[in-house]
Amino acid sequence: MYMIGIDIGGTFVKAGIVDKDGNIVTKSSIKTPLDPPVLAQNVAAQVKALVTSAGLTDADFTAVGVGCPGMIDSKKGVVEYSNNLRWTNVPLGEILSEALGHPVSVLNDANAAALGEFSYGAGRQYDSMIMVTLGTGVGGGIIIDGKLFEGAGMGGTELGHMVVRFNGEPCSCGRNGCLEAYASATALIRNTKAAMEADKGSSMWAYAGDLAGVNGKTAFECAKTGDKTAQKVVDEYVNALGEGLCNFVNIFRPEAIVLGGGVSAQGDYLLRPLDKFNETFGYGGKKSSKVVLTTASLGNDAGLIGAAYFAVTGQS
Amino acid sequence: MYMIGIDIGGTFVKAGIVDKDGNIVTKSSIKTPLDPPVLAQNVAAQVKALVTSAGLTDADFTAVGVGCPGMIDSKKGVVEYSNNLRWTNVPLGEILSEALGHPVSVLNDANAAALGEFSYGAGRQYDSMIMVTLGTGVGGGIIIDGKLFEGAGMGGTELGHMVVRFNGEPCSCGRNGCLEAYASATALIRNTKAAMEADKGSSMWAYAGDLAGVNGKTAFECAKTGDKTAQKVVDEYVNALGEGLCNFVNIFRPEAIVLGGGVSAQGDYLLRPLDKFNETFGYGGKKSSKVVLTTASLGNDAGLIGAAYFAVTGQS
Repeated sequence: MYMIGIDIGGTFVKAGIVDKDGNIVTKSSIKTPLDPPVLAQNVAAQVKALVTSAGLTDADFTAVGVGCPGMIDSKKGVVEYSNNLRWTNVPLGEILSEALGHPVSVLNDANAAALGEFSYGAGRQYDSMIMVTLGTGVGGGIIIDGKLFEGAGMGGTELGHMVVRFNGEPCSCGRNGCLEAYASATALIRNTKAAMEADKGSSMWAYAGDLAGVNGKTAFECAKTGDKTAQKVVDEYVNALGEGLCNFVNIFRPEAIVLGGGVSAQGDYLLRPLDKFNETFGYGGKKSSKVVLTTASLGNDAGLIGAAYFAVTGQS
Repeated sequence: MYMIGIDIGGTFVKAGIVDKDGNIVTKSSIKTPLDPPVLAQNVAAQVKALVTSAGLTDADFTAVGVGCPGMIDSKKGVVEYSNNLRWTNVPLGEILSEALGHPVSVLNDANAAALGEFSYGAGRQYDSMIMVTLGTGVGGGIIIDGKLFEGAGMGGTELGHMVVRFNGEPCSCGRNGCLEAYASATALIRNTKAAMEADKGSSMWAYAGDLAGVNGKTAFECAKTGDKTAQKVVDEYVNALGEGLCNFVNIFRPEAIVLGGGVSAQGDYLLRPLDKFNETFGYGGKKSSKVVLTTASLGNDAGLIGAAYFAVTGQS
């Protein structure tokens, strides 16, 4: 069995052929045309080239899955609203289905990534898991009893937009104090810069060169070498993320939480204190079920693989 | 069709016979024996008396549902841990089943109340709803696609124990800044007293008599008559609750949120500003699906009715 998965981003469309074990046989990227009919034609050509290059034919595929940023009505295959693509009410499933000659399923890109990790990645041994992505923003997806949970209505499962600090840091969503405003790489970089400004002697200056050179690794790497200012930035970051994850534990008590995105590359250095946080503060302490914390394993391919899985398993 | 529902509390056990429309035909209360076998015998006698008084026979019932405080393994009918009852690992379903001569289903009492409102109360027209109870603590239950969601493991769906304020007010669960520490009646009373201490001229003094007379209505009722100090207490309470409910909206995007518990008696006076809060701050604003806010309609009978519904529909 082979599957086709497509991951539409604001800049690139990635498409790939995935085998029954979740391995990507071949993949390619094209620039994202913002006009839906043009996008459909270009993606159809992209997929056709992939199928040919893999030595397969159209008959080897039954369905195509597409992950797309924004609010998606996955039952209808309609992009209700996408800020990244500047789309409103685009029947993407229908348009792509006509161009590709296959049924096309569409789902939110963060949900696709969660489904990817669930089906073939770090979450494959669990029935109930939450994926939390620590990147420019904080996103996520929820799998309950082996099935993607998208919320009953549009605008659901926005895990980064949970306020954890009344009147806290401003968030892009219009509220103040969202988890995203503390646990995103963007927030980490903001706090790293502020700490450097306050401590001109920190080794972070030598590591980053200047403020423009600061990234999500700066504080973590300098903390590892004993820089106390960097350690404070890391501690505050981990505590904020710990509160957020502990909230998800108390609300969902999943079997596992899978961390993705750039910051998750810190691996055990991040997971160990988060594990301790949960064991100490999760509701019911040791009397409650343990939640496994782990990092994602599919990297940037999670969305493509999850979209393919979504189409084939008919999750919608 | 008739159903039997039982609601075990720390002080009283309520049992009732519920008809197919969710109406309670007859009910009674007995004191709660903390010894499980004694409880089983007393409850069996209580149920027998109810059945007889309703002019029914044992053959009119197929199953019995029990709501119980604590962490419940509803698949096994086992009370894993209940702080209120001081029970650990009690096979309540089995013990009661032997005494009653019927299969017995057991679920958490807050979940039973949510299921009661879902099946026959304020949430009956929705498939996906969250119930949030504003009482001594903040509890809740989650219904997804017509089915109770209990979390994958023990210690799930503790909706009151979501931190909304890093390092905020201490909570009984060991964390600081939980929703319960701001939106429970206990928190409202704490804040009302503090505001009164700071404003000896507030009309709340006359309303309550003294600090010992303060309850969850004090600030609300005095705010309605124009007391500015009381209004500030109410505004802060509503904002905190608003942030919490908005978090649930962004995480679950349910069709409805049903508010229960003593504070929910404020009705529209509470719902109107909360509605506005959600419309302003819910992720995606008007582009997202609207979430209906409403108040519970079954009062203290919700748990009994929901437990009966749970047993009959075999939700576990």
